[in-house]
Amino acid sequence: MGTRKKGLEFAKHITEIITKATGFERHLEKVQITGGGDGICTAEFKVGPEHLNRGGGLHGGYTATLVDMITTYALMSKPCHPGVSVDISVSYLKGAREGDDVVIEANTIRAGRTLAFIDCILKHKKDNSVIAKGSHTKYVNFE
Amino acid sequence: MGTRKKGLEFAKHITEIITKATGFERHLEKVQITGGGDGICTAEFKVGPEHLNRGGGLHGGYTATLVDMITTYALMSKPCHPGVSVDISVSYLKGAREGDDVVIEANTIRAGRTLAFIDCILKHKKDNSVIAKGSHTKYVNFE
Amino acid sequence: MGTRKKGLEFAKHITEIITKATGFERHLEKVQITGGGDGICTAEFKVGPEHLNRGGGLHGGYTATLVDMITTYALMSKPCHPGVSVDISVSYLKGAREGDDVVIEANTIRAGRTLAFIDCILKHKKDNSVIAKGSHTKYVNFE
Amino acid sequence: MGTRKKGLEFAKHITEIITKATGFERHLEKVQITGGGDGICTAEFKVGPEHLNRGGGLHGGYTATLVDMITTYALMSKPCHPGVSVDISVSYLKGAREGDDVVIEANTIRAGRTLAFIDCILKHKKDNSVIAKGSHTKYVNFE
Repeated sequence: MGTRKKGLEFAKHITEIITKATGFERHLEKVQITGGGDGICTAEFKVGPEHLNRGGGLHGGYTATLVDMITTYALMSKPCHPGVSVDISVSYLKGAREGDDVVIEANTIRAGRTLAFIDCILKHKKDNSVIAKGSHTKYVNFE
Repeated sequence: MGTRKKGLEFAKHITEIITKATGFERHLEKVQITGGGDGICTAEFKVGPEHLNRGGGLHGGYTATLVDMITTYALMSKPCHPGVSVDISVSYLKGAREGDDVVIEANTIRAGRTLAFIDCILKHKKDNSVIAKGSHTKYVNFE
Repeated sequence: MGTRKKGLEFAKHITEIITKATGFERHLEKVQITGGGDGICTAEFKVGPEHLNRGGGLHGGYTATLVDMITTYALMSKPCHPGVSVDISVSYLKGAREGDDVVIEANTIRAGRTLAFIDCILKHKKDNSVIAKGSHTKYVNFE
Repeated sequence: MGTRKKGLEFAKHITEIITKATGFERHLEKVQITGGGDGICTAEFKVGPEHLNRGGGLHGGYTATLVDMITTYALMSKPCHPGVSVDISVSYLKGAREGDDVVIEANTIRAGRTLAFIDCILKHKKDNSVIAKGSHTKYVNFE
């Protein structure tokens, strides 16, 4: 199976997971998984009113939620157990406003026997400027 | 005005902010602000189905959202501008399940002229065991 | 054995480790371990010329080294394997200059079967103002 | 001036700074700056006995010191004031032993008017496997 086809299969699989989500994960309902596989997951969404803080910018908690989830999807594409979170860190570089198109890219830097390390970046689609970057360390050892 | 009275005034003020929230902050609607003032904010909530991940545990993205918001409320009690996020880090120590009562405590370690540093801890109410701890660095210089 | 006596025994034990250190740990040679036990380690040092950055302040890399080591000593007091580092984060709140006396306190928040989470704070001895705070996540499962 | 020539000029400039260092920065004396410019700094070093922890691996405190310094050199190449540290986070993915050749790459993701965000990665030269990755947030506003 080609890389592009694998990416589409992966995107379809994750989209189904999001569609069926009942808990906090349902807040990714407007996030479109665009590709992935081999430790990577890419996604896009348009900032909506439900994603904003009081100042009218993309909410830092929603950004952190996206870092948490898109890195987890990336890890699941290894394929690998989704694991449990150990540490998440997020840096906020630039704002985003309602209507902005945001591209998300998560990349598994290392998935060891017990720990996995996945990076994530959120960028403006219009100019590739970085909105936020995050790191997620997960415990994956469930032998 | 006494400390306890000030704490109640602060709790009332933040509760009004949450009640009126229209964006992502509305996901704190079930979080009860229990006190605060002088750089501190305390809160409580019962883990509901809307806060869960697929595994039935408290979602890491919701935990990060709580760290983001409760530290911001703590900072606002200085009183101080809520500022904008620079860096958030969260460590996940222990799980929480639906029905668990969770206590949140945020404490401003330093609010300087340009940057503020606020810590946050989420604990099980039943035994004070730590669920998560977080740090939030905010930029507050808007002279 | 009383808590104070246990603290002195622990301080003596760690001091011997530092004295015999041959690698990078020898840069703690002027750090005095003042107490500890049950997941805690306290220490003190006077900022010397060898700890400075070009600007004449306490070097951020030395601060990070202290966070790394004093949290590890705290963990060793459980007693527990020193473990291996997973994630370290440090926030820099305030400067320190040559001659300043600095107090360091590390506290194990949780030492589970596989992961341990230890916090650390560096304070000015003169006024308890916080110079830096750090978090260290270690992998400790060597069954 | 060509990119390669600019890189060599930059490497020479930073090498002079390290050579003249009197404080904690002198521990980079064996680190060879290999290039840089436009927000980037690359370097190499061979792990020596002075960089080790008791277990014979590359010391986490030295790794954090390298993240701190190489990101600062990257920022200085913008050109830009070196700034002061706000937050540093380091993830430790893989060990390194004495004699291993390590490549370091730092990249300025954003240098704004008041804050700069620089990433850093340490890799084994032999196979490009990641030893550690770090993020450094600096305050750069000294108008």
